[in-house]
Amino acid sequence: MNIVIMGAGAIGSLFGGMMEMAQPGAVTLIARQPHVEVIKKNGLQIKGVVGETVLDINAETSANGIAEADVVFITTKAYDSVAAARKIKHLIDNGAYVVVVQNGLGTENQIAKVLGSRRVLRATTCMGAILESPGVVNATGEGITEIGSHYPENSELIKMTVELINDANIKTRGSENIEGVVWTKTIVNCGINPIGAITDMKNGEVYSSAVLRELVIKLVEETVEVVKALGIELTTTDPIRYTLGTAKATANNTNSMLQDIKARKRTEIETITGAVVKMAHKLGLETPTSEAVYALVKAIEAKYLENEDVPDEDITMATDELIKTLSTH
Amino acid sequence: MNIVIMGAGAIGSLFGGMMEMAQPGAVTLIARQPHVEVIKKNGLQIKGVVGETVLDINAETSANGIAEADVVFITTKAYDSVAAARKIKHLIDNGAYVVVVQNGLGTENQIAKVLGSRRVLRATTCMGAILESPGVVNATGEGITEIGSHYPENSELIKMTVELINDANIKTRGSENIEGVVWTKTIVNCGINPIGAITDMKNGEVYSSAVLRELVIKLVEETVEVVKALGIELTTTDPIRYTLGTAKATANNTNSMLQDIKARKRTEIETITGAVVKMAHKLGLETPTSEAVYALVKAIEAKYLENEDVPDEDITMATDELIKTLSTH
Repeated sequence: MNIVIMGAGAIGSLFGGMMEMAQPGAVTLIARQPHVEVIKKNGLQIKGVVGETVLDINAETSANGIAEADVVFITTKAYDSVAAARKIKHLIDNGAYVVVVQNGLGTENQIAKVLGSRRVLRATTCMGAILESPGVVNATGEGITEIGSHYPENSELIKMTVELINDANIKTRGSENIEGVVWTKTIVNCGINPIGAITDMKNGEVYSSAVLRELVIKLVEETVEVVKALGIELTTTDPIRYTLGTAKATANNTNSMLQDIKARKRTEIETITGAVVKMAHKLGLETPTSEAVYALVKAIEAKYLENEDVPDEDITMATDELIKTLSTH
Repeated sequence: MNIVIMGAGAIGSLFGGMMEMAQPGAVTLIARQPHVEVIKKNGLQIKGVVGETVLDINAETSANGIAEADVVFITTKAYDSVAAARKIKHLIDNGAYVVVVQNGLGTENQIAKVLGSRRVLRATTCMGAILESPGVVNATGEGITEIGSHYPENSELIKMTVELINDANIKTRGSENIEGVVWTKTIVNCGINPIGAITDMKNGEVYSSAVLRELVIKLVEETVEVVKALGIELTTTDPIRYTLGTAKATANNTNSMLQDIKARKRTEIETITGAVVKMAHKLGLETPTSEAVYALVKAIEAKYLENEDVPDEDITMATDELIKTLSTH
């Protein structure tokens, strides 16, 4: 088995490392220069809730030198996924399939389009991980990983991937309603992440504030209206309770959007709240609260990104195309 | 003429100092201990757009020792105005009238209630000032001051006060539509202040951001609906243009709400956005964007106020009473 992890940051390195432990020699991480350098020199250090270990694992800064793979996991930030897909297209042309492990909406369809392949799976994970320093990944939380596909012909690939990841001791299951899984996670992200990011508060602080809980509820309600209009079935019957429950259960978490703001990195606001707002407009729905937090996060991020290179989004799907691919009607 | 400035911070010290220059010996500033100490030792230093001078001026930490006055200016933060009024009630009982110089809605009516007097005027000012350090006030901008009253019998007092302030070289005029003046200023404050406060941006940065300009427009639109429902006539026919124009014209300003957040002081969000949201609810209007920024400012401020004494609001008016006093129907 040849497994390539494209964009091995925190989650990618954790998944890659766990699979390498199950199948020594199988995994190659494609990552940024400093991370690769430390891994080549000292190995990959894994710590946290999955135990401590140091692994000898293949790591490269580019997939150019790899000729073939069975599966490529794309674990970049959502806004880098198209660029990442372009860089591993030769592996797909040579027979590999893709598993997209990300937050946000619609990236698996963008990737399928760029690759000219429908052998694309989508995964969401409730595993938490932080890249503490180059070469060191800290697993901060354990949770279920779910895998499915927008393309019905992929059921065998899903089964195979579920086994692959389960064998690596990451609790995983297949889902026939991956759109519902992704949207349920997106609702939680829409409800909590921008608020934490704007106020510089951990999930527990957001949960503990009465005014912020009200704001979470409004964001969830607006997003649920979009989900309803798309005919998508969530994996929870009470998304407000589910979102607030998640905030409470992960009280000590600094959400990923706040982590990005603190690190002065680009956030995933576009593929989370931004995608919801765009779809709502197209569907004739109003999302004033979502638009308010969207604008504030965009402005905060624009202030420090001003002089940095922001990846272009030239193949971002038009909204109606995005709606079409997401709708289960 | 005996003039008392109750709560002499930046604006109060500037107004008091200018009036003292026109009428030496007339003014007493009531201010915080450090400010009073420096003034007693070195005088009040005024600088900035009104020129530079150092003034010998009366300054005390309490109005207790003052038996009589002709006029008391209340220039505290809006949330301190009721407490301030209680402390100068003896001066009003002995014949003084009051001029309230503040941002926000409804405080002059709360003050009139506490004092048991209708000899209460309201002023808004577009003068800008910062208390740089105890004893040192920096005039950062010059603009019109307008004076009016909710109580029609006060036209002579208005005329007298306009002359008093004009004589002190502060450009001032009377208004027969002070509710409209106050609401026009409140609309600008609702549109700009919370956004600047949340994003840590100067007025010009808010103006320059396309997403934030959209947010300003929505906040203004929601507030204008409340103004319409109350039957109040604004002093501008185009409040959106007026608000954005103000942001542009005052590009280098750090708005007062952001100043308060930086200084970890209580903000005036309650008497600005909070008052508008409460009135909107009572009137059956929706203000989702205002509620979002209200919640975010409240949460940010609550985080640092947590262990501090917040002045009680025990005599805050009930919403319908507030609407009644503000409506010109």
